[in-house]
Amino acid sequence: MAAAPAGAPAITASSSFVSSSPFCLKASMTSQRRPAGRVSIVIRCVSSPPAVDTSFKTNVPRNANMAKLQAGYLFPEIARRRAAHLLKFPDAKIISLGIGDTTEPIPNVITNAMAERAHALSTIDGYSGYGAEQGEKKLRAAIAATYYADLGIEDSDIFVSDGAKCDISRLQVLFGSNVTIAVQDPSYPAYVDSSVIMGQTDLYQQDVQKYGNIEYMRCGPENGFFPDLSTVPRTDIIFFCSPNNPTGAAASRDQLTKLVKFAKDNGSIIVYDSAYAMYISDDSPKSIFEIPGAKEVAIETASFSKYAGFTGVRLGWTVVPKELLFSDGHPVAKDFNRIVCTCFNGASNIAQAGGLACLSPDGLKAMQDVVGFYKENTEIIVETFTSLGFNVYGAKNAPYVWVHFPGRNSWDVFAEILEKANVVTTPGTGFGPGGEGFVRVSAFGHRENIIEAARRLKQLYK
Amino acid sequence: MAAAPAGAPAITASSSFVSSSPFCLKASMTSQRRPAGRVSIVIRCVSSPPAVDTSFKTNVPRNANMAKLQAGYLFPEIARRRAAHLLKFPDAKIISLGIGDTTEPIPNVITNAMAERAHALSTIDGYSGYGAEQGEKKLRAAIAATYYADLGIEDSDIFVSDGAKCDISRLQVLFGSNVTIAVQDPSYPAYVDSSVIMGQTDLYQQDVQKYGNIEYMRCGPENGFFPDLSTVPRTDIIFFCSPNNPTGAAASRDQLTKLVKFAKDNGSIIVYDSAYAMYISDDSPKSIFEIPGAKEVAIETASFSKYAGFTGVRLGWTVVPKELLFSDGHPVAKDFNRIVCTCFNGASNIAQAGGLACLSPDGLKAMQDVVGFYKENTEIIVETFTSLGFNVYGAKNAPYVWVHFPGRNSWDVFAEILEKANVVTTPGTGFGPGGEGFVRVSAFGHRENIIEAARRLKQLYK
Repeated sequence: MAAAPAGAPAITASSSFVSSSPFCLKASMTSQRRPAGRVSIVIRCVSSPPAVDTSFKTNVPRNANMAKLQAGYLFPEIARRRAAHLLKFPDAKIISLGIGDTTEPIPNVITNAMAERAHALSTIDGYSGYGAEQGEKKLRAAIAATYYADLGIEDSDIFVSDGAKCDISRLQVLFGSNVTIAVQDPSYPAYVDSSVIMGQTDLYQQDVQKYGNIEYMRCGPENGFFPDLSTVPRTDIIFFCSPNNPTGAAASRDQLTKLVKFAKDNGSIIVYDSAYAMYISDDSPKSIFEIPGAKEVAIETASFSKYAGFTGVRLGWTVVPKELLFSDGHPVAKDFNRIVCTCFNGASNIAQAGGLACLSPDGLKAMQDVVGFYKENTEIIVETFTSLGFNVYGAKNAPYVWVHFPGRNSWDVFAEILEKANVVTTPGTGFGPGGEGFVRVSAFGHRENIIEAARRLKQLYK
Repeated sequence: MAAAPAGAPAITASSSFVSSSPFCLKASMTSQRRPAGRVSIVIRCVSSPPAVDTSFKTNVPRNANMAKLQAGYLFPEIARRRAAHLLKFPDAKIISLGIGDTTEPIPNVITNAMAERAHALSTIDGYSGYGAEQGEKKLRAAIAATYYADLGIEDSDIFVSDGAKCDISRLQVLFGSNVTIAVQDPSYPAYVDSSVIMGQTDLYQQDVQKYGNIEYMRCGPENGFFPDLSTVPRTDIIFFCSPNNPTGAAASRDQLTKLVKFAKDNGSIIVYDSAYAMYISDDSPKSIFEIPGAKEVAIETASFSKYAGFTGVRLGWTVVPKELLFSDGHPVAKDFNRIVCTCFNGASNIAQAGGLACLSPDGLKAMQDVVGFYKENTEIIVETFTSLGFNVYGAKNAPYVWVHFPGRNSWDVFAEILEKANVVTTPGTGFGPGGEGFVRVSAFGHRENIIEAARRLKQLYK
């Protein structure tokens, strides 16, 4: 196909494209027609798209790994049950302490920087297109200097992302289907689900509620929520979250030293999730890289979500030290860099401007105030359950309270609290079989909702 | 670990955390210390992180699929050569018509909406945390009504993403390692590279410059840039980009009708990349779903990047019709929904506010003006090369001019134009062996740079 000659014809073509475009009318009709709605949006996650009756099928086989996945992803499932409850009791004043979603406004110092960047994108000098897939140089430098100063982590070890959950999947794509993994039990579902999707696991075993070929490291009150490593077989990858979601337990320096030695002895790679590090109140390490030798065995993934309320803005980072090598001596960071360049195009430049503001002196103070606020919520929840005679765990170093209901089914407890107190929690078994008998209560919420939820819980369990 | 009691201790803990934090000083030192720099950022993509000499290696095997990948991803490689040229000639006034990166400011109607959303995130009523992984309801509805009205695509078929490149990888994760794929040759590198990463291919064959187990559908002047489907063997997945990157060729209604019939006869799934649809000047379809029956065999991925200058803002969408079924009858959209919920957390809410503004009447007009501007650039480039006696292709329906240098090595031509005219293009073979003898010239650029590049090219090839 030869190109059109220069000049008039092309201008005509492009102008006629403008004028003949049917888009404008339809769009304006739309934007006036459709209301927003958080709940129904979230319901779509599990209810849509529905299967339909149609005769034509492609000959493309469904990915067998997808078929291994059980039910929906945990939080959409909880949203579905919440919505079902609302259908039954339309007037129910539901308070959600379930999905760990932030509720407090983002400090102005941070949103002002994002608004400024947005406006700058309308100027010749302020416009920027594709950024570096690994993140803007200034932000990588600020993350390294803020969180890893004196730990030997360099700017080039930092990969800025659109969030820890997304990077966990990119790390799984990096590792491929032939690695074995271990997870804390209970743990954040994304580790296990992404492992299943990548084909690292066998089928789900209903009797033990575990996927085959995943090592579940039991973490409960009996072992201080730190696995007995002497009984844990070697795996290639060890996902370890501290402070832990859902138990709220933060591993001590001594425990993390043991974990790093365990990884080194086995030649394993630790994927350390430190998304809640700023919630640590005691002297537990805020980064795995505080442990000598960790750079040779660990990756760390982190996020602005729970510090700055960025759950919707989407910004995080992953540290892959250049010292971390595969068995053939190839640097893991080199392959992760290739994954990031091929499967990702960088976090939104506006979100990155927000991240840079988060790490300014005012931004850090503002984030610490947000964290402090949620930590006060945590104390209210802890007081509520302890006053009712429950054993609660976590809380001190995390925005999660892990409440023990000995001998009870955690989905039953979830249903009881939802139906009788109109409070949404998260059933412990949603995080693994080790969560049976527990519910996770999130401290993210407006203060008045936390206080009202506490009142209802005291009513329910008095 | 039992939780701390309520009240003072926790407050103390959190306050002391604030006051004792070493973060602020370091951050402020940093943000003053480190300058930004696009070029060096981009260089990191290939040069960092460097391998280092260290004795310790983990026992984790490197993903064999990663080892199959050749060189770096194309555009970082071009950035490396550009940087090398700059080192040699520090005063060179380089004009980049290489990577298809937008250069014109984003219209105010769009950035104002993003800034407004950013500011709203600092208010109780305007704050939002986790959104639906599939995108905000209003945006999904606006996309469906704007681009797919009367095509039977529903809001729930639309999955909002952080860009087409990212969704291509998520689609590959969805399909898994046991599918076979076909690509246009030449084509956008992300299809092939993500296929290699997922393990769908055999090793790279240097002699033919192709990966084993990928079907390369040759598209050149000899066949009007549309493959001779009678010679194409059946594959599970067919990646098809129209208007095509890099050739700029848009498939006609008749050609796409043949493609849909081909997919239906073979039970294949077409992944249709329509990222440049708004550049179409003739009556070529702007969506694969304009072809009857396409909903049963096609997925469509699209992006705001080249319409609104969102290459850095990051926003796109993928349409997975509920009518599209795997061989076992399972809806593809159901599995993609699970991938999106597990491996992604939605596009930035600020970017989504921008997307909604893009689809308002003023936003659509503004995008069409941006597209029209780049199309005028395209005509200048076409006129330049045609006046020099070159055969050029594409251009009419795309922001790319595909220039033929018969019998020449395209990397040599790339080097010649870079060294003698200080203009960065993209060598055709970067898109596949079918690109040999061609270079892609991008029409994204400030008008004065396009005119200056044209002057230099006329000087070089006069």
